[in-house]
Formats: sequence, structure tokens, C-alpha cells
Amino acid sequence: MTKTPLSLLGLGAMGTALARAWLAAGHPLTAWNRTPGKADGLGADVAATPADAVAANRLVVLCLLNDASVEQTLAGVDLAGKDLVDLTTGTPAQARARAAWARERGARFLDGGIMAVPPMIGHPRSGAYVFYSGSGALFEDHRRTLAVPAGTNYVGEDPGFAALHDVALLSAMYGMFAGITHAFALIRDEDIAPTAFAPLLVDWLTAMAPHVHRTAEHLESGNHAEGVVSNLAMQVASARTLTDTAAGQGVSPELITPFLSLMERHVADGHGDEDGAGLVARL
Amino acid sequence: MTKTPLSLLGLGAMGTALARAWLAAGHPLTAWNRTPGKADGLGADVAATPADAVAANRLVVLCLLNDASVEQTLAGVDLAGKDLVDLTTGTPAQARARAAWARERGARFLDGGIMAVPPMIGHPRSGAYVFYSGSGALFEDHRRTLAVPAGTNYVGEDPGFAALHDVALLSAMYGMFAGITHAFALIRDEDIAPTAFAPLLVDWLTAMAPHVHRTAEHLESGNHAEGVVSNLAMQVASARTLTDTAAGQGVSPELITPFLSLMERHVADGHGDEDGAGLVARL
Repeated sequence: MTKTPLSLLGLGAMGTALARAWLAAGHPLTAWNRTPGKADGLGADVAATPADAVAANRLVVLCLLNDASVEQTLAGVDLAGKDLVDLTTGTPAQARARAAWARERGARFLDGGIMAVPPMIGHPRSGAYVFYSGSGALFEDHRRTLAVPAGTNYVGEDPGFAALHDVALLSAMYGMFAGITHAFALIRDEDIAPTAFAPLLVDWLTAMAPHVHRTAEHLESGNHAEGVVSNLAMQVASARTLTDTAAGQGVSPELITPFLSLMERHVADGHGDEDGAGLVARL
Repeated sequence: MTKTPLSLLGLGAMGTALARAWLAAGHPLTAWNRTPGKADGLGADVAATPADAVAANRLVVLCLLNDASVEQTLAGVDLAGKDLVDLTTGTPAQARARAAWARERGARFLDGGIMAVPPMIGHPRSGAYVFYSGSGALFEDHRRTLAVPAGTNYVGEDPGFAALHDVALLSAMYGMFAGITHAFALIRDEDIAPTAFAPLLVDWLTAMAPHVHRTAEHLESGNHAEGVVSNLAMQVASARTLTDTAAGQGVSPELITPFLSLMERHVADGHGDEDGAGLVARL
């Protein structure tokens, strides 16, 4: 079967990983990078300018520094009839504006948010995947090609949804990392080996993560007290133990106090018998 | 085999769940609760006073409101020769002081931190377990009895370690819940069903939780840059996308900014090529 040829603009760490995956799978690839030399040895056709790269193929993948780089790189380039897939990191608002910009220039547009670090790209078992949103027709026409470097998850015609999903998951991850950082800080001056503590932490977080499903059900039903076992009033009552322990261990509580404070305000407003779904509307 | 008889002080939701589990397993149980009537129908021997409950058995389990309740409940009670297991929620400092207090009164002392909500107690497959620390001899003598309501994890002779492990895991969980709350807030005004988004969030957090192992290794080696793929400088560079997205969605960034700010300060101090292990010492 003939493999779809494509062009790729941007050979940073992620762009290079993508290029290797497509080339390894037999896709003819034309590459461009602002700093020359990055394509050396990859096996790609090297384009001298962004316009040359875009002209070479219908399918054009962008993996640049940020949305301003996309604007700058493609200024004045003829995009009519092109299928643009923008994997550049950005906000939902930037993706929506970029989609309108592409449409005005006669191109179809698909935005992507990559849920992986470069070493995971091209390894199907790594769990790497990309959120896509925007032109469903473009996605359907190229889904096999797009599935080469990582799994695909199309989340809708709204071009902002891929970035929104991407940012939402990253934000949740940073919350978890904040909690992990605080936990390690609590034991840092004690005779407890971090590598002995780590499996307890991983198992606990993995066991508690599915609480997300209950929150989602509560958000959809609007009943935030249904089936609640450990309600906010009980949680707030024991929050003092967390801050007192931090103080006793000489650890700044800055990473945990915002959430404890949010729960306290919600309880003070009469939601003590609920669980945390109602906090979502307070932010 | 004869089942060890024991006394239990405190029949709140957790105490009642513990009582049911021991009684169901055939352990003779003497129970006391400040408000009478809580033991009705349980099948336990009801003690009229804390002193009566303590006198009835060598093994005495405490599951009271807080550490002050323990002090108050056991004031003037003869504890000589008793094995006290304190499952009351508290700080490491409270557990250490309570252990010294028990020792002065001639009792052995074991502190416990329960990693479960009451409905999980007595169900071995629920994953419920209790951190124990303090008298290793007490723990060894009673480990079969202690294993009836939930799994056991003895974490050392320091009586503060059970509470410290408990609080550290709970703190990490609240960090994760904060991130989850922020993530749901980002999509709250969009045509994205929370129950469709939830599995993505659970899978992502479950996939990212094992990052804890890397952090633990870095903390032990002291080399925070070894094998780093996505370093702090790169993460800080994309943090703007997270806060801009929150602003665009009308969501307060209060739950994510403390951690982003901590990363920024660490990068500003010259640690951009590291990952997050160094943040632990900054708190």
C-alpha cells in the first residue's frame, strides 16, 4: 500500500521524533526547520523554505515553538487546498483563531495536542496519543497516517477542544505533582527512604484516581450529595491535621492550602454534606 | 483457634465498621462510646465507662474524634500492662507525645493511620489498610487480630511514622483532587460530557503517577538532572499555556499557580535542566 507523503515543519525534539516515526513507517517526508541541519541523517527530503515544504505535499504537519511561530513561519505562504495539522502547543483560543485563519486561506485545519514526551513517539505500547479536533473530514482522510507516531483521539469539530483536553489533563497532572512534592517534603528529614515511600504513594494515587468518575456523575446529575461517604464537612474537620503536620515537619503548606481553603469556603456556604463536585463551579 | 478478645473505645462511623469486622470474625469485643446506644444490636459487650472497657481486655483499640478526646477519655484510667492501639486521626507529634504518655502509664503503644473510608473496612478486597508505627512487639503479638478489619503496614518504631505516612498520602491525594477540580472547571462551560472526559483523566493520572519513582530515585541520588526528558525549563515555558487557557475559560488558576510558581522560582535559580525532585527541598 502506498504511504501518504507529508511535510513536517519544525524539527525540535518532538518534531524529530515524529519525523523518525513516519520515515520508519515508509512515509515520504519533506522536512523544514528554521535552523538548518536538523534534518541531516533523518532520511527526509529537506525543504529550503516553509513555502517549499508546504508546496511539496497536501498534508502539512506543524510542530513549532508556539502559535506565534506558526503565524510567522507561514506568513505569505499559499495554503489553498492544503490539509494543515497543527501539533504546536497552544491554548484553545489560539487553535480556534488559527483554524479560522487557515479556513480564510483555503486550507482544512486540524489541531492536535500531544499527550507524550518525545521518547514515547513511534512506540505503540508507550501509551502515547494525540488529541485532535477541528476538521473531521481531514481527520478521517488521514487517520491512518496520523496514527503512525502515536494513538489518536478525535474530540470534536471545535478546533479548540484538542488543546482544551490537553491543557486540562496537564493541569490535573501538575496538581498531582504538587501533592507528590508536598508528600516527599513531609518525609524529607525523617529516616524514611523515598524509594520505599514511592510505591505506597503510587498505589494510593492510583487507587484514588477513579474518584474522578463519581465527580463526573455528580456534575452531570447536579446532585453532589448522592452516595457520599466522606463528605466535605468531615474532610475539612481533618484538614487541620494536614496543616499541623506540615508545620511540625517544617514544610510550607503553600501547595495544599488553596484546595483546603476552597473546601472550607464551600462548607461554610452550607455544602458540608456534599463531596467535591460543587468546587468545580467555584473556580 | 481462640480469637483474641479486645476492647474498642469510640463507635463513630469508623469505630462501628471496625467493631462489625472483629465481631464478624468471632473476636469477643467490649465496646464503649461517649454517647450511649451506639453499640445496640452490634453484638458487643457494652462497657459503662472507659475504665470498664479498658479493664475488660489487654488489647484496647481507640478510635475517637481526635487526640484531645483520647486524653479526656482515658484520664485517670489504669493503663498498666495494656496494649493500646490508637487509630484516632492525628499528627505525628500527637502520636509521639501520646506514645510517651502511654509508656509513663505502663502501657505498650501502637499508633495507626487508616487508609480507608468506613465502607471499605472488613472487606479484604477493598484495598483498605492501616499504617502502624510504635511498639513492634505489640504489633507482632497482635498482627492477626489487627489484620481482621483491613490490611496492615508496619512502618517503624517511631510512633509518629504511621500518622506521617497517612498525612503524606492524604496530602498528595488532595493535590490530585485539586488538579482534577481545575480540569473539570476548564471544560464546565463546553459541550464536553464530564463522564466522557473522566476516563481520559483517570487514565492520564494513572499513567503519570509512576513518575513518583523517578522523583524518589533523584531524591536519593541527589542528581536531579539524570535521565530527564521534559526538564523544568521546558515545563515552565509551557506553563503560560495553562494559565492563559484558564483565563480564556474564565477559571481561577488558584489551584495550579502555587506549583507553577514554585517551578518558575526553581528555574530562575538555575535548575532548568532538572526535573521536579529539587522542588521538595524548597517547601
